[in-house]
Amino acid sequence: MRSVVIDSRGTFQLAERPDPVAGPGEVVLRVRAAGLNAADLQQARGDYPAPPGWPADVPGLEVAGEVEQVGPGVADVVPGDRVMALVGGGGHAERIAVPAEILLPVPDGLPWEEAAGFPEAFSTAWDALVGQAGIRAGDRVLVTGAAGGVGTAMVQVAAISGAHVVASVRRPELHDRVETLAPIEVVTPDREAEHKPYDVIVELVGGEDCLQRVALLRARGKVLVVGVQAGATAPLRMFDLMLARAQLIGTTIRGRSPAEKAVLAATVRTAAVPLLARGRLRVPVDAAFPLDRFSDAYARLGGQGKFGKVVLIP
Amino acid sequence: MRSVVIDSRGTFQLAERPDPVAGPGEVVLRVRAAGLNAADLQQARGDYPAPPGWPADVPGLEVAGEVEQVGPGVADVVPGDRVMALVGGGGHAERIAVPAEILLPVPDGLPWEEAAGFPEAFSTAWDALVGQAGIRAGDRVLVTGAAGGVGTAMVQVAAISGAHVVASVRRPELHDRVETLAPIEVVTPDREAEHKPYDVIVELVGGEDCLQRVALLRARGKVLVVGVQAGATAPLRMFDLMLARAQLIGTTIRGRSPAEKAVLAATVRTAAVPLLARGRLRVPVDAAFPLDRFSDAYARLGGQGKFGKVVLIP
Repeated sequence: MRSVVIDSRGTFQLAERPDPVAGPGEVVLRVRAAGLNAADLQQARGDYPAPPGWPADVPGLEVAGEVEQVGPGVADVVPGDRVMALVGGGGHAERIAVPAEILLPVPDGLPWEEAAGFPEAFSTAWDALVGQAGIRAGDRVLVTGAAGGVGTAMVQVAAISGAHVVASVRRPELHDRVETLAPIEVVTPDREAEHKPYDVIVELVGGEDCLQRVALLRARGKVLVVGVQAGATAPLRMFDLMLARAQLIGTTIRGRSPAEKAVLAATVRTAAVPLLARGRLRVPVDAAFPLDRFSDAYARLGGQGKFGKVVLIP
Repeated sequence: MRSVVIDSRGTFQLAERPDPVAGPGEVVLRVRAAGLNAADLQQARGDYPAPPGWPADVPGLEVAGEVEQVGPGVADVVPGDRVMALVGGGGHAERIAVPAEILLPVPDGLPWEEAAGFPEAFSTAWDALVGQAGIRAGDRVLVTGAAGGVGTAMVQVAAISGAHVVASVRRPELHDRVETLAPIEVVTPDREAEHKPYDVIVELVGGEDCLQRVALLRARGKVLVVGVQAGATAPLRMFDLMLARAQLIGTTIRGRSPAEKAVLAATVRTAAVPLLARGRLRVPVDAAFPLDRFSDAYARLGGQGKFGKVVLIP
């Protein structure tokens, strides 16, 4: 099969790889679309190794496709099933072996490229907002970097939870599109403070100033640190945190055990996928590229002005 | 009555003040001993104003003494009762008016100076460890600045909760005394990492390097930011927080509403005071000074090498 691989210099190449075989508890998917994520670029730079049990040199953290092979001990899955999954790597290839316990069903009629953009962004958003922050109706929520793949998911999950959402988007030309996600307020970062105090701030950008947002929290508010691409170290004024009795919560899904990932998949399967099926959550796709245009896809991923997900079609 | 006051230059003076009168819901105490806290010095510097409803220019956040006057609407308290309380200011004086709902009983036989050192340190420790961090038996807990007033309380509350406690104390000459608090490990700060990973880290020191301790956490661990006198701004490596899925929790009691303080006092009254009465919690007193030696007391508070609390005897 064809696969994107990360070579020894950290650059992406197209290569032939043996087709995977479904081991016990696994299925092999024919990948029809695969989402791109910032972690793919970090992995190529050597900053973010794949977790154990996944291909170390093939990027791709989320896939959608048909089940082709079913391994021993897998019940309730048959060849031809349309499924999607958040995986630990190996998604940017024509086939991938995936533990059956993390599969999510693709709703009828949902295009492959939208399905491919769902698992990572919405698992992250659901886990962070509903699971960790315990978001509740009436909360005021600020989402930074709200036009990106995870940002558009966070905005929707917060809005569907009954929160008052302020979406911070640096580029004014994207504001109209972000406003289509839900009944929300869209602002440039310099105007975030006008809408304080926030019960929850979702940090998806990072950078030197990002922890100054702690001062925008209501008492007992929470900052969820989810993405820090613009800079991963920042000064924290600890009195801001103390006086608000605030919490700074870091989160990633990547480092979790297979059992924890299965638990999260079960939550997403029962709680979030039905909302996707009914059209109450949606996956904005910024651009889709065929597998042999992987370079253009990664360039788009690293570029500016995206709205939603970048996807590969193997 | 005699009272310490903070003058317009931020220095402490002894002054005559009118005796307080017990308003509705209040009692007036004859203060027999009053604890000193770092916040007294911060208040004198103008960094940490007293909360509304308390004397703005009289330091003193915790007192023990006898009830002298009982105001309208106060039940279950009579003159002569031995009580202690965490107050918003005004404790370094011969008398103070205190809402009855925050009074704690002083156990029979407990010396006044030990009672005076109990409310602030143990309310802070109980609230942070039991209330906010949800400490559980078997947790590994690191307490920094463990020889101080709050530190000795944190060590004891963690140990009585069944945690494995590592107490970090910069001065080796204090290690023997800290070891008397509970069956714990006492280390110098350079050896904290040898005992990782920690489920809970209690930050009582602050300073430029303090948030590097996030790297010592177990997955889903928590840093409680309680004291930052050595420096209130520090860089945070956000990947450390994200990969551990850790939480940084800031806390103070000072900024809470009167109702929240009454709730905390009720918890401390039923949960912690009985342990003090049975000798399972104790208040190490570093030094006690009569009121007219307030300068020596504050100098001792700001000095090095303390073990436990510094107390004034009005």
